[in-house]
Amino acid sequence: MSVDRGAALYGLLRHVRPLTLNSARVVEAAVKPHALTVGMRAVLEVLSDHGPATVPAIGSRLDLARQGVQRHVDDLVRLGHAEIRANPAHRRSVLVALTTEGAGLIARIRDDELHHLAAMAPECTPEEIATATKVLQALSRDVRKRAAG
Amino acid sequence: MSVDRGAALYGLLRHVRPLTLNSARVVEAAVKPHALTVGMRAVLEVLSDHGPATVPAIGSRLDLARQGVQRHVDDLVRLGHAEIRANPAHRRSVLVALTTEGAGLIARIRDDELHHLAAMAPECTPEEIATATKVLQALSRDVRKRAAG
Repeated sequence: MSVDRGAALYGLLRHVRPLTLNSARVVEAAVKPHALTVGMRAVLEVLSDHGPATVPAIGSRLDLARQGVQRHVDDLVRLGHAEIRANPAHRRSVLVALTTEGAGLIARIRDDELHHLAAMAPECTPEEIATATKVLQALSRDVRKRAAG
Repeated sequence: MSVDRGAALYGLLRHVRPLTLNSARVVEAAVKPHALTVGMRAVLEVLSDHGPATVPAIGSRLDLARQGVQRHVDDLVRLGHAEIRANPAHRRSVLVALTTEGAGLIARIRDDELHHLAAMAPECTPEEIATATKVLQALSRDVRKRAAG
């Protein structure tokens, strides 16, 4: 029975990697006309969801190395979507924040994504989607623990 | 309501990338003592599940480019876990097959993975895991379609 449970979770996990790859391809195609990459879009999203943040804080939310985040931030600043501000909490670090243009852009991108997503997996009920989210969250928590340990 | 549905699927998708990254880290740590990479393990698994296959067929199952698969195959052959055979169906292509050692190794690796997985997400019932698998499969199918289109 324990083996069955492992096999069931394994069957679930097998969908996760192709779904991640193909989602990234879809997002990449959608943001390309805005001169954004998937990573830059992810940084915009973190700033939009959580407000101004330091580069290390953005990296920890995205499971991305500091250097990668810094590159995305530089590109976003260059395009006028983000700006650097003094950090009131720490004199020697800075905060990254959305500009008005950046906030508008990520809002439009996300609206468009939600619109397309809403038409997907039409055979699944809201309750089934909620259950799937609960399972993925629990599994993600435990796999993260094992990856760290 | 359609927007709610999109938002619900988006909430589900947000777990998918970190889960993929952390799963890869766990698998990487587990196969390293066998001198394998995550990619080499994935090739062993395809050969174990589906029998001897051509390099392009393995690539299409893994959503991996032909060159990447060829590199993994070369490494597996060098380690004695896979071997090249004539392809009875096509004189000009060859089949990759597991050796007895490779078959034993991937079986041991997977037993160990299932054992660890069985202890994860303990608050989820078998029914919930089955529902999550159904939802991920449907979503993966539709995202793949959009990625290709």
